[in-house]
Amino acid sequence: MFITRWIIFVLLKHFPLNVTGSHHDPRVTLTGEDVHVRRYSLNCSNRRIELLPGFPQNNSVYVGGHGKLWYLNFNRRNQSKKATFPALERKRSDRKPTAPGNYDVTTLHRVDATRLFVCGSNGNQPKCCLMTLDMVCIEDISPSGIAPFNVTERAPSLYIDNDVYAAVSREAKQNSVAIRRIGNKTHMWPEIAKQEQRYISMAFSGPREDQLQDKVYTFLVQESSDNHPEASAWNSWVTQVCKADMGGPKTMLQKSWTSRLSARLSCGIHDRKEYFNQLLDVAVLQADNWTQSRVYGLFRNGWGMTAICIYTMGDIDHVFKNSDFEGFTGAVPNPRPGEQCVKDSTKLPQKVLSHVKEYPNMRDWVWPVGRGGPLMVSHHDYKGIRADRVRGPGHKHYNVLLLSLDNGRIHKVLEHDAGVFIIAELQPFSTRTRIQNMLLQHSTKKLYVSSSSEVVEVDLSGCQSYGSLCVDCVQARDPYCSWSRTHCTATSRKGIQDVEHGNVSVCGQDGGSVPKPSGKKVEILPLASNHYLHCPMSSSHAEYSWRHGGQARECVPANGSCLLLINSMTSEEDGVYTCVASEGGYTRTLAEYRLQAESKARGLTPPSLALACLLLLLLIR
Amino acid sequence: MFITRWIIFVLLKHFPLNVTGSHHDPRVTLTGEDVHVRRYSLNCSNRRIELLPGFPQNNSVYVGGHGKLWYLNFNRRNQSKKATFPALERKRSDRKPTAPGNYDVTTLHRVDATRLFVCGSNGNQPKCCLMTLDMVCIEDISPSGIAPFNVTERAPSLYIDNDVYAAVSREAKQNSVAIRRIGNKTHMWPEIAKQEQRYISMAFSGPREDQLQDKVYTFLVQESSDNHPEASAWNSWVTQVCKADMGGPKTMLQKSWTSRLSARLSCGIHDRKEYFNQLLDVAVLQADNWTQSRVYGLFRNGWGMTAICIYTMGDIDHVFKNSDFEGFTGAVPNPRPGEQCVKDSTKLPQKVLSHVKEYPNMRDWVWPVGRGGPLMVSHHDYKGIRADRVRGPGHKHYNVLLLSLDNGRIHKVLEHDAGVFIIAELQPFSTRTRIQNMLLQHSTKKLYVSSSSEVVEVDLSGCQSYGSLCVDCVQARDPYCSWSRTHCTATSRKGIQDVEHGNVSVCGQDGGSVPKPSGKKVEILPLASNHYLHCPMSSSHAEYSWRHGGQARECVPANGSCLLLINSMTSEEDGVYTCVASEGGYTRTLAEYRLQAESKARGLTPPSLALACLLLLLLIR
Repeated sequence: MFITRWIIFVLLKHFPLNVTGSHHDPRVTLTGEDVHVRRYSLNCSNRRIELLPGFPQNNSVYVGGHGKLWYLNFNRRNQSKKATFPALERKRSDRKPTAPGNYDVTTLHRVDATRLFVCGSNGNQPKCCLMTLDMVCIEDISPSGIAPFNVTERAPSLYIDNDVYAAVSREAKQNSVAIRRIGNKTHMWPEIAKQEQRYISMAFSGPREDQLQDKVYTFLVQESSDNHPEASAWNSWVTQVCKADMGGPKTMLQKSWTSRLSARLSCGIHDRKEYFNQLLDVAVLQADNWTQSRVYGLFRNGWGMTAICIYTMGDIDHVFKNSDFEGFTGAVPNPRPGEQCVKDSTKLPQKVLSHVKEYPNMRDWVWPVGRGGPLMVSHHDYKGIRADRVRGPGHKHYNVLLLSLDNGRIHKVLEHDAGVFIIAELQPFSTRTRIQNMLLQHSTKKLYVSSSSEVVEVDLSGCQSYGSLCVDCVQARDPYCSWSRTHCTATSRKGIQDVEHGNVSVCGQDGGSVPKPSGKKVEILPLASNHYLHCPMSSSHAEYSWRHGGQARECVPANGSCLLLINSMTSEEDGVYTCVASEGGYTRTLAEYRLQAESKARGLTPPSLALACLLLLLLIR
Repeated sequence: MFITRWIIFVLLKHFPLNVTGSHHDPRVTLTGEDVHVRRYSLNCSNRRIELLPGFPQNNSVYVGGHGKLWYLNFNRRNQSKKATFPALERKRSDRKPTAPGNYDVTTLHRVDATRLFVCGSNGNQPKCCLMTLDMVCIEDISPSGIAPFNVTERAPSLYIDNDVYAAVSREAKQNSVAIRRIGNKTHMWPEIAKQEQRYISMAFSGPREDQLQDKVYTFLVQESSDNHPEASAWNSWVTQVCKADMGGPKTMLQKSWTSRLSARLSCGIHDRKEYFNQLLDVAVLQADNWTQSRVYGLFRNGWGMTAICIYTMGDIDHVFKNSDFEGFTGAVPNPRPGEQCVKDSTKLPQKVLSHVKEYPNMRDWVWPVGRGGPLMVSHHDYKGIRADRVRGPGHKHYNVLLLSLDNGRIHKVLEHDAGVFIIAELQPFSTRTRIQNMLLQHSTKKLYVSSSSEVVEVDLSGCQSYGSLCVDCVQARDPYCSWSRTHCTATSRKGIQDVEHGNVSVCGQDGGSVPKPSGKKVEILPLASNHYLHCPMSSSHAEYSWRHGGQARECVPANGSCLLLINSMTSEEDGVYTCVASEGGYTRTLAEYRLQAESKARGLTPPSLALACLLLLLLIR
């Protein structure tokens, strides 16, 4: 209990920018004013929000909420629509009507150019239907195994070739658990869970060269059966099933997966016994070659720290194809269970089926790419992750992660060989709020972020906010952005940028030289007065300092500014003050002031003038 | 690696006082100027410092360092002495002389009113001798099993009735490990270690009613034999031996402990699987009844967090007397091994001896007192702990802990039923340094803290630093201090104090009412100038705020002050500004200022005066 308080406390302390500049902090913080955002208020509060890319138009999104569905078009607001779910369908049905708004949309998929697939939960009365783009239910679909009993359950799902693949740990009342398929192909039955499972995410591995081998992967956390006092209570797993799987014959595994295998996901530093066992969210970056597709896992440990581990689909596939089976020592049957997907799984040998039934877990774990450890470890309380592949200047590609925090903020993170660079903290919402969902539109580079009552569109290539100079643009190291020789804008092939190092030398003469800041005017200050000078601290990675008369003066950080405090003004404090920021070996002047103590400044003070006047009078007498 | 960087980073961020005031922070920070400290420079650097209470005089201390011994008398500096170790002895000996200063003093004990027992290490050539108070070696003692091979090894030891009990994990070159005894009683042999052990501390349990039952307890960390991936690499243990133990007969355990038993020390929150397995330091508070004596263990976990767990000698004794033996299922021999100390252990039955040899570990763990969890959990990187029992006003007793940090600072911590209250952070050293050793003088309430080159005496009842008012004294909640009706001073029976709650109502009318701060004088400020007001933030537990014209104004924390920033002075900013601190429901004004924008203020400005003068000239024409 108190340890948790600690972590939270440490987090809170962490937010303000710091002078020394730790590179574990976002380099800059951008509020709604800084970034290019567009907002849509839902005018109601939703405990769950589902997001689906809008179509046919870009810059639009379908939103499922509490008894409602929205089509939000951020370009043409007048085209936006709203409908009650499942009200429209209810008119047609003769079953006892349910009050509108008791349903929460839990599932939202695109079927084809003209139809949506929507499910809503209402305790143990879920329902699904096919819907027109005008959001009218035109056909009921059995919700069994798709919509969760508990609205807070994630119940991830995919819609592939008129089949819905869904992972639900608790549908209706009974504690069934399953990866289900409903649609044209064989429907798969639920089963009773041995250990409690929470499904986090689902991903399609293909399409592969031989489409028969296409697989669906499910990522989950499972209660640990290890009763060692120090063993973690939850572990993370990945499960595979063949898309072509039709289940076994009547005798065994009928309407159950004959290709299901599971493997542990490892995320930690083993020689230091530092593990992140609880998977929170997953983002998949599909590659042209499916084996190269990257799975980004966001994990948490018992101390409230988070970590990101990266796995390739190829590595996952390799474990399923080559690892020993947990608890099994004999000779592995032929064909090796789960290695190849087959046209007709009902014809699989009995031995293979019983092996899959008895020994579905791999002994080997799936290890992260690279050093076999996390890409990044953080004490930030990250909740969700999305990933994007960005084409930077000169056609080089970069992976960017978007991490949502528990306070409604988002970290834009660059992945590079040496690790990560936290480009910016985005604050899409005006107040502290919980992020319900995130949707990344790869084609438009737009990120849709929803709170319980608002959907915000963030333009990931909103680059002006970094500043008006080439150095601002280059030091940002944002692959979405480059310097167009006039301003910082969405990356173009000819744009100036150095994502790898943020080295401003690429700016050349013009961009490198910064116009001296204004503020030459001399300020006259009363003697013994307190005065402060202000200097903006935009980058938490820069070192800020003040200089006066060749001497360094203390920079007092306060509210994201670097202050110079003059405690009782004297003539010794006269002169020029400059605030200097140095980052990545590049130093620039941000502010300049000229101060002068009063006494010196004034020529004729009232008394002296009066004296002069008196003398004058005497003279002319 | 990067996780460690995190922890350090978080620690660094933690030091400055914060406005919101987390009670995990020291309430106040006291530097060398604030506290009553006296310093002694050793004029050399030592990699190890041993401290021993000075005698016969109080306020003095014996210090062992690199080839040197000091007697430092803080009251009469001219009585301080210094000697080379073991130089003086070397003159008499005919063995090949060793260059002075190659020895580091590792052991320092008082033998009687006239003699010291001193050991020094010099790689595998350690030496020990009896010494006069003039620090002349008068008799060589075999160092075997007392002085460690590696100077950085703690090798704790006790001197009881002309016997030295020492715990050394590596004496000379061979990797022997043992709790040894050298002196009048049977000498015990070393043994070869199964697991690596690091000895942390030793304590004498007695004297007990029946002195035959007196025991010596050793606290250590031991490499874990548990190869579970998540099992911690080190665990903490307590080991008992009987003072009367003479070892076994020739046939078994000759010159080895026949009474040695070991038990795990538990420090953690088990239902949340949060463990602190690595013991760093131990402090023992002896009680009149030995069973009530308290053992304070300072622990660390793999995430760089620290915790303090408290055990009673009685609880430790109970485990040794009642627990099953790890790995043993049969009938326990009679007498139960290690339960009773015997006059002649060589006559113990064979069965008992072999049981002690085979099954020395208890199955039960020793649990902390109270909630069975830590007294305190912290992310501060505490290194050492000392404990004191303080008689507060009204003869009530309080336990105070002194925790050394890795940066040379010390936290003074009050233990109370609800947990802890961090009274103050003491900064005895002027620069960041590593604390080599601490010695607490219970009789004089002085704490001696040594860096590698300096010994500082801290007066724990230096109370003036809390402030000049009763409320300052009471809110400090320092049991060493109370309000004498004139100032805050060392606790007296009649002193005013409320250690439990720091409730200032005990101050009554006089103390409660705070004289209005000065600063009534009106400050005239130029229009549009930046001005700041300053308010001292002495307590990190208080909430600070500014008030102006009935409105609350933002307090900008900077360098332990609460600033009010006026960005461009206008007449709207005219008026009275008060800085208010509220703590524990008690609010007081700390600063007050009156500001006025220039324009209003000045009567005759030079131009208007010139005009008047001109008119005058015209008139008298």
